[in-house]
Amino acid sequence: MADYSLLYSQDVRCMKYSAIRRMAPIALRPDIISFAAGAPNVETFPVDEIRAIAAFILETDSRGALQYGLTLGYAGLIEAVVDFCHTRKGMRLTPDQIAITSGSQQALDLVGRLFLDPGDVVFLELPSYIGGISAFRNLQAELVGVRQASDGIDIEDLVARIEQCRRSGKRTKLIYVIPNFQNPSGLTISLEKRQALLEVASRFELLIVEDDPYGEVHFDEQISDQLVAIKSLDREGRVVYLSTFSKILSAGLRTGWIVASAPIIERLDLAKQAADLCGSMLDQRIVAECWRRGVIQRHLPRIRQFYKARCQTMLESLQASMPAGVRWTRPAGGLFLWVTLPEILDSEALLEEAIERVQVTYVFGHPFYVNGQGRHTLRLAFSKESEDNIRAGIPKLAQVFRNHLK
Amino acid sequence: MADYSLLYSQDVRCMKYSAIRRMAPIALRPDIISFAAGAPNVETFPVDEIRAIAAFILETDSRGALQYGLTLGYAGLIEAVVDFCHTRKGMRLTPDQIAITSGSQQALDLVGRLFLDPGDVVFLELPSYIGGISAFRNLQAELVGVRQASDGIDIEDLVARIEQCRRSGKRTKLIYVIPNFQNPSGLTISLEKRQALLEVASRFELLIVEDDPYGEVHFDEQISDQLVAIKSLDREGRVVYLSTFSKILSAGLRTGWIVASAPIIERLDLAKQAADLCGSMLDQRIVAECWRRGVIQRHLPRIRQFYKARCQTMLESLQASMPAGVRWTRPAGGLFLWVTLPEILDSEALLEEAIERVQVTYVFGHPFYVNGQGRHTLRLAFSKESEDNIRAGIPKLAQVFRNHLK
Repeated sequence: MADYSLLYSQDVRCMKYSAIRRMAPIALRPDIISFAAGAPNVETFPVDEIRAIAAFILETDSRGALQYGLTLGYAGLIEAVVDFCHTRKGMRLTPDQIAITSGSQQALDLVGRLFLDPGDVVFLELPSYIGGISAFRNLQAELVGVRQASDGIDIEDLVARIEQCRRSGKRTKLIYVIPNFQNPSGLTISLEKRQALLEVASRFELLIVEDDPYGEVHFDEQISDQLVAIKSLDREGRVVYLSTFSKILSAGLRTGWIVASAPIIERLDLAKQAADLCGSMLDQRIVAECWRRGVIQRHLPRIRQFYKARCQTMLESLQASMPAGVRWTRPAGGLFLWVTLPEILDSEALLEEAIERVQVTYVFGHPFYVNGQGRHTLRLAFSKESEDNIRAGIPKLAQVFRNHLK
Repeated sequence: MADYSLLYSQDVRCMKYSAIRRMAPIALRPDIISFAAGAPNVETFPVDEIRAIAAFILETDSRGALQYGLTLGYAGLIEAVVDFCHTRKGMRLTPDQIAITSGSQQALDLVGRLFLDPGDVVFLELPSYIGGISAFRNLQAELVGVRQASDGIDIEDLVARIEQCRRSGKRTKLIYVIPNFQNPSGLTISLEKRQALLEVASRFELLIVEDDPYGEVHFDEQISDQLVAIKSLDREGRVVYLSTFSKILSAGLRTGWIVASAPIIERLDLAKQAADLCGSMLDQRIVAECWRRGVIQRHLPRIRQFYKARCQTMLESLQASMPAGVRWTRPAGGLFLWVTLPEILDSEALLEEAIERVQVTYVFGHPFYVNGQGRHTLRLAFSKESEDNIRAGIPKLAQVFRNHLK
């Protein structure tokens, strides 16, 4: 028997199954009320329209849909992204500034591979998105956590961390942020901090990776003015902007995208060529046609309302049932909110009890912290369960916490 | 303006656009007879059946098809691969030995990331597949070429190269082969060499990456007995077997797979999780249903006949028109054959003339050689053009070569 441990790369020797991953099967049990699942709700997917469009594509463009295509993506989808970014984000782009990826996760991986050597430093919020953490960690990057305020990343702390890394001779490379309704915290970075981030990046010659999967899922049209893409303020080509149709159309049709300066996209082409030749041509055509026909645009108000109602219900239930000392964020969009328990409680230890005693599950918080903190925090997704289940599940969870606070 | 050259990773600084890549747009010109295009012919794709199956899936399983799925692949497709490998390859597998990938290219990339650190050595034939070369090169592996005989990789030369690398203290890791109708040469590794490869891998504690995209596209039922998968002989878990439905169903539905020992697949799960979360769920369901309904099985004889007829025509045309001193392989399957010109000719230099003077294109050979040789070789694909175009194009190409041999 081959001894694989001698053969694995250094990258792979660093990889570990997260405790969250091990919990995933539990979230699928039908008797469980799951506030863990991070996926968008399938009820928001326009199934009938997608079905009609898939049939249309396989009728009119089967040769394109079933053959290899360009590495950087189907031209029709790149056009749709140009239009999306212009009409929704105020970015005027040319097609050579766009790469289509197999969801945002591939974008994170490719951007990491483009810029990170082992030991290079990525700055990211405490807490930050687990998919970003694992993509960068798998590349043996050093992940440095930055404090988070209620209006997002703490700029003073960021500068202090950068200076500290520089002094110890580390290669500082990227700042990773999810500016709108962050996964996991639900927080949004304020407009002035977006500008400040750019200034910091410019001053220290860093790139910003702006990951924006949730920006369109806002609960109030008025807030959308404040969700200015950092990329749209970028004059130096310092921002690599990522987004996806996963939350506003369908997650299984794997279509994310990267917006960056043309020289970066040219390098991405090479990296992606070796990574997968090209993405799913059928998926890309379906999504492009959904945009061309206005399916995504028409469904956005319904999707926002869908998650807003669930979020509202969850906030009301938390307010009505949680014991004193428990705090939570009040997201203006997205799929998640973040709960902070009194420090004496351990959200990982309590999860087993929540599952076994009251059949409710959530994601405990410390894996979102690259510095090992956050043991008294947890993420609640309001995306999967019905309002009735939210009203039933939150008080049960509150009871579990209360039992340990007596 | 950010100076990206200071920010790129070492991997990316090594990447180069291959000359082949720059030629790609020419192969698409309608006035050109292209023996360059490496893609399977869309005429072999069962479009009507795929259309009906896509409609059926979006009717009966839209929630599964449009939502995130498992990182290692849709269970129904893993079942199909278990069945495929059993009925077609004589491998008895369990689902935990299989990972579904976004085509074979993602499999090559993930396997490379699993096993290769910068400087690690991969042994591969002269010539070998460009997609494998670029996946491993992008990971900063050292690529060591091994001579190729008419029955595939030269085992003596392989052993000599391994010993040489060992003596100079290099970390030897992988042997990469495409045993059946190799891209680019069209050659097949003999049965005894398959066994010998396993013995070499065991003796030197290496892994074999057995890349088998073309094995089902054989031109003679009798040869299929000799196409024994090296993996099926593997008692030590030393073989990582890759294949794909790209050549026998559709290339745009991105579904390849990896067969390996369960501990390797478990590591792959982690690597793939960070690379793309999951592949296209619609593609995977369409392909699984194509297998379940017997669509792939029924079409295989037609596909084999399709390429066999074109190959035969190309061989006859070469025989009738090529000047003395030009040699070529006689593939027993696949999409390609390999031409060796007299050493005074340079296939890259002649390509421009072939395009401009006679409107015929091919892929020149030296990028398939990791040691810089092969300047007098070239790859001809018989997959794209009709038999009439093959009969018209080969004599024109022969004329170009003849002009330079006077």
